[in-house]
Amino acid sequence: MTNQFNRRKFLQYTGMAGSAFFLPGKSTAAPAPLFTSDEIGLSKWELETPSLCLELEVMEYNLKKVHQNLQDTGIGVRPHIKTHKSPFLAKMQMEAGAVGVCAAKLSESEIMLENGISKVLMTGVNVTPEKIRKAMDLRKKHAGFIQAVDNPVNARDLQDAANAAGIIAEVVVDLDVIRRSGVPTGIPAVELAQLVDRAPNLRFMGILAYDGGAQHVKGHEARKARTVQTFEPVVETYESLVKSGLNVEIFSGAGTGTYDMMADIPGFTDVQVGSYLFMDAQYMAIGSKGNAALYDDFDPSLTVMTTIINTNHPNRLITDSGAKAFTINKPSGIVIGEPDFTYNAGSDEYGTITYTTANKSYQVGDRLEVIVPHCDPAINLYDRIYGIRRGKVEMIIPIMARGMSR
Amino acid sequence: MTNQFNRRKFLQYTGMAGSAFFLPGKSTAAPAPLFTSDEIGLSKWELETPSLCLELEVMEYNLKKVHQNLQDTGIGVRPHIKTHKSPFLAKMQMEAGAVGVCAAKLSESEIMLENGISKVLMTGVNVTPEKIRKAMDLRKKHAGFIQAVDNPVNARDLQDAANAAGIIAEVVVDLDVIRRSGVPTGIPAVELAQLVDRAPNLRFMGILAYDGGAQHVKGHEARKARTVQTFEPVVETYESLVKSGLNVEIFSGAGTGTYDMMADIPGFTDVQVGSYLFMDAQYMAIGSKGNAALYDDFDPSLTVMTTIINTNHPNRLITDSGAKAFTINKPSGIVIGEPDFTYNAGSDEYGTITYTTANKSYQVGDRLEVIVPHCDPAINLYDRIYGIRRGKVEMIIPIMARGMSR
Ligand SMILES: Cc1ncc(COP(=O)(O)O)c(C=O)c1O
Ligand SMILES: Cc1ncc(COP(=O)(O)O)c(C=O)c1O
Repeated sequence: MTNQFNRRKFLQYTGMAGSAFFLPGKSTAAPAPLFTSDEIGLSKWELETPSLCLELEVMEYNLKKVHQNLQDTGIGVRPHIKTHKSPFLAKMQMEAGAVGVCAAKLSESEIMLENGISKVLMTGVNVTPEKIRKAMDLRKKHAGFIQAVDNPVNARDLQDAANAAGIIAEVVVDLDVIRRSGVPTGIPAVELAQLVDRAPNLRFMGILAYDGGAQHVKGHEARKARTVQTFEPVVETYESLVKSGLNVEIFSGAGTGTYDMMADIPGFTDVQVGSYLFMDAQYMAIGSKGNAALYDDFDPSLTVMTTIINTNHPNRLITDSGAKAFTINKPSGIVIGEPDFTYNAGSDEYGTITYTTANKSYQVGDRLEVIVPHCDPAINLYDRIYGIRRGKVEMIIPIMARGMSR
Repeated sequence: MTNQFNRRKFLQYTGMAGSAFFLPGKSTAAPAPLFTSDEIGLSKWELETPSLCLELEVMEYNLKKVHQNLQDTGIGVRPHIKTHKSPFLAKMQMEAGAVGVCAAKLSESEIMLENGISKVLMTGVNVTPEKIRKAMDLRKKHAGFIQAVDNPVNARDLQDAANAAGIIAEVVVDLDVIRRSGVPTGIPAVELAQLVDRAPNLRFMGILAYDGGAQHVKGHEARKARTVQTFEPVVETYESLVKSGLNVEIFSGAGTGTYDMMADIPGFTDVQVGSYLFMDAQYMAIGSKGNAALYDDFDPSLTVMTTIINTNHPNRLITDSGAKAFTINKPSGIVIGEPDFTYNAGSDEYGTITYTTANKSYQVGDRLEVIVPHCDPAINLYDRIYGIRRGKVEMIIPIMARGMSR
């Protein structure tokens, strides 16, 4: 299916592709990836390094797999694009059956909405006058933009801004589950939802409850136990909202670590999975239902190609890819094919591999392929992803919202 | 001086400034920062957040201070642009008296050379055929480009490529001092230098010896002791090179932590300071000659403006700036004016501040100014730096080599 999709897009944009990426514009068509470049057709082992590579077949497998695994649950998928920051990948997610996408920040939301992704739920809040005004302008242009709120002062500010913009803006109430964002569950949440519901220029749409702390708990059982516990007050709040007559259309939460545990949560509508498309060392370590040692619901598709630049010391290889290519998140990157290698990306510009056993002897200039420690911030270091199929660069995907943390 | 410099550039480019940054081109003029934007003239407290801000007066103080402190030593300054990745700031460093700049990567070197910085020493090696060819092409266009080498195979490859390009390329030999890059000191280093010297298309220029491990050792005495020890074999190698008749024009090394300890090292020519321009939490913690608690040779000039988005929990503030705004380096960011605040940027999109005492009571929407944990990778997250003078945005400096890790 993706091959067809690519070919169609390719034909559609043949006349447009140049040496630069398409810039975010006013168009509402999703931008195509780049198909004309000197690098198209290269083996991934020939790319200059460091470069960020995506195994398209694996990614497409993950893309479908989340829907397959949720098939009989009635749970929808609302992928979080904070992970990939690419309208092109968001488009693939929509075509695979997503009910919409999530974005963390206003600038990310804008990139998505202005580039063909019509349904964006922003999970973060906007609290300053400028951002609130911009958010309402964005909503005015794009009916599919949903905003979050987690305190009553902010709800009143949103009401005023929606009124000033002459719109009715869709709003979800973010619930506090990990002492990060959100309004406390119970009475404060119900009162905030009612405040939103009564506000003439806001439309109450439902609730968010993302348990960031549960995602990387090791062991499926332990993760599930924590999730059930976290969701107790959330579900009580949900039931109070329903009882008070509010229409909870959206009850969203969960990530790649807990997406398969939500079917028993009353009223829950959709999972906000982000990392599932790529996986990373952090997620691989948490274990799945059937495999305690490796989380294998999804397969790792995202790697950094790196070059060995120094072999002077025994049991030690130096690469050209450090913190600016990987981030310093732990567990660190996984060198494919070399289970005994430990990759240290603590130096800004250099990687240091230490090992006792290696499957071959390495020379300066040899390449290594490394699974990233944590996909979100790693992707945020690059401007493009090399889409690889059967070992070759098929497309170059611009990371249009890279660096958009506002 | 900088004000004048800015005004001159401003007049020069008045007709050019638009809403986009200048892109790297073939011109050899240093690009001006952006002076026309809706954001020029705003208070730094009005900027949307997260945004990366540079106190220009403090930066200018640091810029001069390193030269003042080295005034009577005969040691030159060759600032490392891996820190700021901006040709505009490199230009200021050159005008302040630098003997040239260093760059870590080929792509960084190219951005500098193609944008008005004529003397660039690349401290990293190029080991793949494509990069070696590109490096020689770059040298062909820019006579001030110096390359590094740390093994004989690579030296022969450089010779072949220089020959193919029809040039004589300047080369320095990188010495191994921290088991990262470099050729072992002593005989291997001397033999490599002689190999370079004999290669008809290479010109031996000298040696690099950067002790990355010494820079953040706490306490001036301890740092100096380590530096003296590290440099023992380096100095022996230097003396062998001189004895063997080689012309060691360049003997470069040291960073912000050890720049003031090199005067006693025989033959040492210049320090590769990078962080001195900005400082960061990591450097502030190491202590200076006169101050064990705070490294105060240079003052912190680089901060991230952030907004408080949640105050639900006592002794806890949530901000809109996490790992994608700061990196997760330790020690973590320092909130200006709130010595008891601990800033945790471990979450990708959110910052979490914990404290026992605060100087004021904070509301959602309030801004905080935070010194970055580690300047190099933090800057690499942003596309622009807001240059602040007397509290207002004076200019916007494009980080043209952002993400250029190749
Ligand atoms: C609010 C929210 N929802 C969803 C996600 C996606 O989670 P994951 O990448 O674990 O699937 C995140 C990631 O941090 C998040 O912050
Ligand atoms: C080779 C080299 N030289 C100089 C520097 C600059 O050091 P600092 O930022 O500590 O001044 C670095 C930084 O890592 C480096 O790698």
